[in-house]
Amino acid sequence: MSQQRIGVWLVGAHGGIATTVAVGLAALKRELVDEAGLVSALDRFRGLDLVPWSSLVLGGHEIRETTAAAEAAVLHSKSRVFGDDLLDVVEEELALLDAEVRPGTLTNVGKTIAKFGGPKVQALADEAPVATIARLRKDIEAFQSSLGLTHVVVVNVSSTEPPLATPAGEKPLQERTWAELSAALAQSTAASCPVPASTLYAIAAIEAGADYVNFTPSVGSDLPALDELARAKQVLHVGRDGKTGETLMKAVLAPMFAARNLNVMSWVGHNIFGNMDGKVLDDPINKANKVRSKDHLLTEILGYKPTTLVTIEYIEDMADWKTAWDHIHFKGFLDTKMTLQFTWQGCDSLLAAPLVLDLVRFTERARRAGECGVPKQLSSFFKSPMGADVPPEFGKQYDLLEKWAEAALPQGKSQK
Amino acid sequence: MSQQRIGVWLVGAHGGIATTVAVGLAALKRELVDEAGLVSALDRFRGLDLVPWSSLVLGGHEIRETTAAAEAAVLHSKSRVFGDDLLDVVEEELALLDAEVRPGTLTNVGKTIAKFGGPKVQALADEAPVATIARLRKDIEAFQSSLGLTHVVVVNVSSTEPPLATPAGEKPLQERTWAELSAALAQSTAASCPVPASTLYAIAAIEAGADYVNFTPSVGSDLPALDELARAKQVLHVGRDGKTGETLMKAVLAPMFAARNLNVMSWVGHNIFGNMDGKVLDDPINKANKVRSKDHLLTEILGYKPTTLVTIEYIEDMADWKTAWDHIHFKGFLDTKMTLQFTWQGCDSLLAAPLVLDLVRFTERARRAGECGVPKQLSSFFKSPMGADVPPEFGKQYDLLEKWAEAALPQGKSQK
Amino acid sequence: MSQQRIGVWLVGAHGGIATTVAVGLAALKRELVDEAGLVSALDRFRGLDLVPWSSLVLGGHEIRETTAAAEAAVLHSKSRVFGDDLLDVVEEELALLDAEVRPGTLTNVGKTIAKFGGPKVQALADEAPVATIARLRKDIEAFQSSLGLTHVVVVNVSSTEPPLATPAGEKPLQERTWAELSAALAQSTAASCPVPASTLYAIAAIEAGADYVNFTPSVGSDLPALDELARAKQVLHVGRDGKTGETLMKAVLAPMFAARNLNVMSWVGHNIFGNMDGKVLDDPINKANKVRSKDHLLTEILGYKPTTLVTIEYIEDMADWKTAWDHIHFKGFLDTKMTLQFTWQGCDSLLAAPLVLDLVRFTERARRAGECGVPKQLSSFFKSPMGADVPPEFGKQYDLLEKWAEAALPQGKSQK
Amino acid sequence: MSQQRIGVWLVGAHGGIATTVAVGLAALKRELVDEAGLVSALDRFRGLDLVPWSSLVLGGHEIRETTAAAEAAVLHSKSRVFGDDLLDVVEEELALLDAEVRPGTLTNVGKTIAKFGGPKVQALADEAPVATIARLRKDIEAFQSSLGLTHVVVVNVSSTEPPLATPAGEKPLQERTWAELSAALAQSTAASCPVPASTLYAIAAIEAGADYVNFTPSVGSDLPALDELARAKQVLHVGRDGKTGETLMKAVLAPMFAARNLNVMSWVGHNIFGNMDGKVLDDPINKANKVRSKDHLLTEILGYKPTTLVTIEYIEDMADWKTAWDHIHFKGFLDTKMTLQFTWQGCDSLLAAPLVLDLVRFTERARRAGECGVPKQLSSFFKSPMGADVPPEFGKQYDLLEKWAEAALPQGKSQK
Repeated sequence: MSQQRIGVWLVGAHGGIATTVAVGLAALKRELVDEAGLVSALDRFRGLDLVPWSSLVLGGHEIRETTAAAEAAVLHSKSRVFGDDLLDVVEEELALLDAEVRPGTLTNVGKTIAKFGGPKVQALADEAPVATIARLRKDIEAFQSSLGLTHVVVVNVSSTEPPLATPAGEKPLQERTWAELSAALAQSTAASCPVPASTLYAIAAIEAGADYVNFTPSVGSDLPALDELARAKQVLHVGRDGKTGETLMKAVLAPMFAARNLNVMSWVGHNIFGNMDGKVLDDPINKANKVRSKDHLLTEILGYKPTTLVTIEYIEDMADWKTAWDHIHFKGFLDTKMTLQFTWQGCDSLLAAPLVLDLVRFTERARRAGECGVPKQLSSFFKSPMGADVPPEFGKQYDLLEKWAEAALPQGKSQK
Repeated sequence: MSQQRIGVWLVGAHGGIATTVAVGLAALKRELVDEAGLVSALDRFRGLDLVPWSSLVLGGHEIRETTAAAEAAVLHSKSRVFGDDLLDVVEEELALLDAEVRPGTLTNVGKTIAKFGGPKVQALADEAPVATIARLRKDIEAFQSSLGLTHVVVVNVSSTEPPLATPAGEKPLQERTWAELSAALAQSTAASCPVPASTLYAIAAIEAGADYVNFTPSVGSDLPALDELARAKQVLHVGRDGKTGETLMKAVLAPMFAARNLNVMSWVGHNIFGNMDGKVLDDPINKANKVRSKDHLLTEILGYKPTTLVTIEYIEDMADWKTAWDHIHFKGFLDTKMTLQFTWQGCDSLLAAPLVLDLVRFTERARRAGECGVPKQLSSFFKSPMGADVPPEFGKQYDLLEKWAEAALPQGKSQK
Repeated sequence: MSQQRIGVWLVGAHGGIATTVAVGLAALKRELVDEAGLVSALDRFRGLDLVPWSSLVLGGHEIRETTAAAEAAVLHSKSRVFGDDLLDVVEEELALLDAEVRPGTLTNVGKTIAKFGGPKVQALADEAPVATIARLRKDIEAFQSSLGLTHVVVVNVSSTEPPLATPAGEKPLQERTWAELSAALAQSTAASCPVPASTLYAIAAIEAGADYVNFTPSVGSDLPALDELARAKQVLHVGRDGKTGETLMKAVLAPMFAARNLNVMSWVGHNIFGNMDGKVLDDPINKANKVRSKDHLLTEILGYKPTTLVTIEYIEDMADWKTAWDHIHFKGFLDTKMTLQFTWQGCDSLLAAPLVLDLVRFTERARRAGECGVPKQLSSFFKSPMGADVPPEFGKQYDLLEKWAEAALPQGKSQK
Repeated sequence: MSQQRIGVWLVGAHGGIATTVAVGLAALKRELVDEAGLVSALDRFRGLDLVPWSSLVLGGHEIRETTAAAEAAVLHSKSRVFGDDLLDVVEEELALLDAEVRPGTLTNVGKTIAKFGGPKVQALADEAPVATIARLRKDIEAFQSSLGLTHVVVVNVSSTEPPLATPAGEKPLQERTWAELSAALAQSTAASCPVPASTLYAIAAIEAGADYVNFTPSVGSDLPALDELARAKQVLHVGRDGKTGETLMKAVLAPMFAARNLNVMSWVGHNIFGNMDGKVLDDPINKANKVRSKDHLLTEILGYKPTTLVTIEYIEDMADWKTAWDHIHFKGFLDTKMTLQFTWQGCDSLLAAPLVLDLVRFTERARRAGECGVPKQLSSFFKSPMGADVPPEFGKQYDLLEKWAEAALPQGKSQK
């Protein structure tokens, strides 16, 4: 693998996650840090011939106008992350990312996100959806050809979009074929665009022959029409919504209650944090998508619906530190009520960024193995995994990854 | 199964767990409660033809002189467990247990436990080990024959013994054959007995042809010599130390940190509770056995040794409510230190008792399937499972149980 | 004091707090329990000649049709409170309360509360406000005269009302004199009544010559017009909103942060519980009154406004157990961000009921001392104390009570 | 005040607290940070004419051989404290401190501390106590005269010493007069020295005419003999053991339980941290002094002795971040058991350092007001305040400070 270079195209290229990906990748290339937090760096996945850090090249779409260095400095000072001299050392590499960032789109991102759009994307506000797709696609293709990249993986790490209602009288997106959807797109204006921005990016990626990973709860490629397109183009697409903190805990703890027949009466989860994602989720419309993504798995794992409550609140001084407090009230033998509480204090971007790198490496590896469509072995990374056919228990999902790796390992090289 | 009656012989027959087993079984027989907390009652194990509640009959050994009703009343008033009128309804059934309780032994139980011994066991203080084994065995055999029981499962639910040092110049217990051990026993007095009380009970059980389950961290049958004896007698034996609370959480959470390559720097666990078990563990010698049992699995699951600390403290007013506070300090991407804390507030006897019933049912079922020796499918029930050949991850252990059940289910009857 | 009998008239006579007052008072009269939780029973208030338990007699208004015994049984079984045989012993006394319960009013209680109204109050739905006041007053007077009570204290322990908007063009309630308000009442119908139900009860109480205590965040007597009336009638009135749990903690902890110059950046509080009060507060309109009452004191104590968030959520299985999780993020020396979290697990009615008894005793004692208007020494009992002239720091508020008691104690009898 | 310069002589001059004092003072002089965390900077103490930051000059005794810059760098990297460029800016000022650091003494510091002693103090290991006192005194006097300081305040911020047993047959230290103690010192060798190191430093300070503040649980000047000496020399001395975290919380919360007559059954506190203080306290002998200091106040405030447990554990990866988890189990009305838990996550040195600066300013101000002996108004700063005549409730203690300040303020200048 070592001579080939692989592109990582980040939608939301100057957000907290993308910035951390950039800082982290630069640090990994220079071996300034160990590989903690990276699933793909575990012994059990050695021998898979995953793409090395040195072969990854970053670029992306963004609606704001800023620089990676500026965003990294804010994260560093507000959230006290990144070792002391790290930012100085990686400055040059961050500038390389900046050189490969292109304007994204504001179409159907919703009011709260649109407010953050800089002059360049504002100027494109009336661009027709087909023109937007063509432009976004050209950006990805130019990135690949100008830098001589073997392949590109597009990752959506932008803010959560609001849900998009189906206009009265129209067929729901979930029921349309690619022919129907592309016809509708061809006739639509920015104002009447039938799909959210994340789907426009996904179409551009797939048409450019890139794989597509959706790390957010936005729709992205999670439509039958896009799956159809992806299979036609022989690319991989996967998502939705990286599982980094509270929901990871739910996916780990709920199976325990189920296995022990402890009856969960209520599961209450409160989340506070103060990053850009939090600011966007403070809009109740954007939040709706997220809460749904965090909540459904309890019922699926437990087999019954406990009382649930999820709040997500923007508390500015928390910066990138997401604190979740969960209160689980359960009933055991002879109707005895008991309680488990946990407090998770994690730094959001630092939890997410390594998973983005893992997803790029595993997806690229699956492509080399000839896979296309939805790689189900990546389910454990997502809150609401596309194409999942195991229950959303973390252990069962992770088994899929381990078994896939075992099958992919050359004979006699298993490291487990 | 329904005509046959199965005996459950509880060592520690008037302790908190045994008392809860008695109350709970009586309630289950009368269908006064649902089956929450019982693993064996899950849909996935239906169709296995497990022994029904109505077929189970209780008896046991005990060193104190009290009654099940008195112990149940204390648990009820101190710990506010057992529904309101439940104790009145089950009074008769508790008396049936009392009628089948026989004096245990104080040999090698240690000073702290010995203090609780009543006149009957005090009078037997000088009994030679071979005489003790014979007496205990006869009690079990008489229980079986007088009540016409098809089979008996002995379960150790007594207080944790202190570790027993190997006298200088003697071969460690772990290295002796059954021939060597039984010869040593034949020559020893109560004062020079080479094995702890739990092992005397285990020998008696196995020689009586009963299966043996060790729900405590005491040695019990966890010796090569006893495994040899068990296989010779064609019985099952399994243990050690029921996994009900904080350690269950460790077995569930540690695999998550491992799977995500999050580096656990320290895992600190503080446990407070106020029941008899707590009083006994307040003696540092008895506590040593327990702490060891709660701590080793982190290293085994993580593959490296984090800083660990486990305290277990007797706080009388907590009664049977065990509260554990765990603080897990871990390092993620780019050396970012994060924290997970949990507080577990569980009622100890109420968590343990249903597992005792599960172990009886699964063990009895394995016996009917012709198994002997250590049933590895029961690993998920124990902190330090005997004969384990999977890592102590709860998910992997539980898989063994599910696969065993699947294999045992009649074709076409799988309920999963 | 001992020959005289004092009436306690509870508005919300069959609610959780009133029921607990009834059970508790009966138990205190029989000396079945100690005086834990009762402020007025502390050594420092001995010698004040407070009214003894045996002299208190209960009655009240209620909108539902139930019995004290039925409500006590629900509390007992759902929330596992009240010792085992307590309810049997106090049954007779609870029946005495039932005999003195009269229908309340649904005027301006809001839709959520109105739904709980029984046939008797539904039948009175069109009663004019002046008729309602007259009826409620007659109930209190009849209670006093028929039972030969020296004096009556009315306590509002009913559910929280929604705020009542001032109709366009009308003078806000806060600016009206008693003459203006009583004129408006005389002309209004149930539908156009200018005051909430709690104020109708307060007027009835004051006109009956009873003292009035408002344990809820509802308006009650907290209007200049009612203060005017109370002083004219020479009675005491005091409130609002008993301070039992999370807000008590705020009133205790915020002064610490202020005294140490630790800068509170954010204070987030999440409350879950499952009693009737929770069900009513689940209506966002009713909740508004409550959240306001829980939040303002931080700014007053700290002298600046931190980011604050208070949620109150109805989680049915929690029953009367209110769990509050507070996360306080503060900045110390050299901009160092630190955190304090607490979890309060208290039983709401059991925390409130003794304070109701305390307020009755202290109010009655103040009356004997010749006080009228708002007794400021009772500030420490309330979240938003009426007439407060000290900052809402618990310590400073409690000092007022101690100093008042010291002044009231006969010379040489101080017990402190 | 502004022309005069005041010396701050730190015993433990290169420890975490002293290092933070040095960094913080340098930052305050340059106005690089606000005054958060500093009690003396509150509005309520303005107008007192406290010594300004620019007038304070640092020096001290130390047993290790290191530099302030090196210690600050360790704190910064391990505990992620101190803003980013702060250490560069204050480097010069830290060097000024280094120039004024002199070797301390190892006499009676105990084995665990002695291990950290550098060559200079090791070489002085046999120095007779009177010689040690004379040397330490000369260091303080030279500091004052060479730098032209108006006055010096000595502050003990060194590690906690083990308790010193009274040799059989000798009079306890608490019962000796200064004449007796100084006679015993004159005859003793380093090996037979009757007092701990902290007392040697205290004697040197007092004899040098400096005020003495003991921020640790070590004995220091807390002996009748030293009080006698201090009054003779007309200096102030005060301590013991700065109240920064868990004990501050106890002093704030316990009065709430007392005021509400909520019966505290048990109060369990677990503390983990990883700084030098933690390493020293990991020695059970040194820990004994500390635990005693943290525990007694509950009984004093509550008026009865609940079950208490305090653990202090060294967990290296926690660095300077002390996390305390407290579990308070209390009984309210009708025997209802309830729970309060809190988790305090504070940075130890950053909490302590500003209090050291406060104590210097308030002590120096008291001296200017002509006070000598123990300034009781400083009680709120200490876990076990010397000469305290109010109960150890934080509110009552803080009142003393506010009243003292009010009395000291020039007429008409009160800022409150």
